[in-house]
Amino acid sequence: MRPIKVVIPFKLDCAKSRLSSVLSSEEREKLALAMLEDVIDAVSGLGKVAVLMKDPIPDEAPFDRLKSRGFDLLECPQELDPALNSMIEAEVSKGWPSDLLIAMADLPLMSPSDVEGLVKTPGDVVIVPGRGGGTNLILIRDPRFRVRYYGLSFIKHVRIAEDLGLSTGVYESFRCGSDVDEPPDLVEVLIHSRGRTAELLKDLGFALSGKREKTRAGWVRDR
Amino acid sequence: MRPIKVVIPFKLDCAKSRLSSVLSSEEREKLALAMLEDVIDAVSGLGKVAVLMKDPIPDEAPFDRLKSRGFDLLECPQELDPALNSMIEAEVSKGWPSDLLIAMADLPLMSPSDVEGLVKTPGDVVIVPGRGGGTNLILIRDPRFRVRYYGLSFIKHVRIAEDLGLSTGVYESFRCGSDVDEPPDLVEVLIHSRGRTAELLKDLGFALSGKREKTRAGWVRDR
Repeated sequence: MRPIKVVIPFKLDCAKSRLSSVLSSEEREKLALAMLEDVIDAVSGLGKVAVLMKDPIPDEAPFDRLKSRGFDLLECPQELDPALNSMIEAEVSKGWPSDLLIAMADLPLMSPSDVEGLVKTPGDVVIVPGRGGGTNLILIRDPRFRVRYYGLSFIKHVRIAEDLGLSTGVYESFRCGSDVDEPPDLVEVLIHSRGRTAELLKDLGFALSGKREKTRAGWVRDR
Repeated sequence: MRPIKVVIPFKLDCAKSRLSSVLSSEEREKLALAMLEDVIDAVSGLGKVAVLMKDPIPDEAPFDRLKSRGFDLLECPQELDPALNSMIEAEVSKGWPSDLLIAMADLPLMSPSDVEGLVKTPGDVVIVPGRGGGTNLILIRDPRFRVRYYGLSFIKHVRIAEDLGLSTGVYESFRCGSDVDEPPDLVEVLIHSRGRTAELLKDLGFALSGKREKTRAGWVRDR
């Protein structure tokens, strides 16, 4: 199997804004960091991991911890697509020494075994669908491919591969497909995860609620 | 492998009420039926299929078609849990001739290969989580188990099995986990399915929208 380099785009400023009705800005930053670390734990067995940040890398404990664990923290002031495509092009200019796996930073249910299934899936490009037409992970094995996130990126990525004559694999997974963006998504973490993100939510006072039929969120918060 | 009997609870009256902002009552009935037939196509290779209805079985073409394909249509005027537990008890009284698979009727992404993974999963009870803590399918291999739907039924079913000293398998699947309840769920069907439900949505004027970042639903309707 060819070596894999993992890239995780990460945003701390205004992180997870669609959760602002239930979490303060500081809490959302903590949540984003906990999810990032859970994602890193799931993928770090595959190869070198780089975290790609648009904003200056904060001089804070979680980032020092990541650096000390040997993960690259890269600052790139571009928007998501140009930032990722620049990284792809940098690999191309080096002669494509390793395949690239781009993983979103909000997949706290994901475990190493889920990612194993992904890397075993054949295809010049392997796409992992998220909820609502997104692309939660994408494994790029052909240097001609470029990404195009936002909107129905799953469809876009399938078409980009098609237009280049590349073979596309689709790896479907409950855990890789569960991105956390909105309040009802928190229940998935409380039910199906034992990682840092689940611990943090419990520390913040979140617990499962028996009354989903009424609140539909599936969780309550005691403060 | 032991024989399996499949039970699909199905409701036509007030079907899919959480879609009433985007589909008329008649359209929702059509959608519910299309999803039921997609689910039947996914599970019918496993064994005998029974559709369990609370309301009188309508004298309409889709139901005649199901009967002519050899599926049982059972009328049971009880609520969901007592209706299903009565079916379990009926199997117990016959000496448990086959295991029972209870499948929800709103899983149009599911294919026979997804269900194959489920029946290969060990456990006295195998639970397939849905979104938000639900139970989308449950395979019951031990006659002592009883169901308890609504709310966070995934957790309830895990606990019921635990209390009985039964082993629990969890089968996680993107396609089995995608139940269709609310408007944003329709985009999953349009993207990931080629079945009857996807055809119906197209006939009703639904199409993918490139503008998910704005509407967040991922689809548009031309009428």
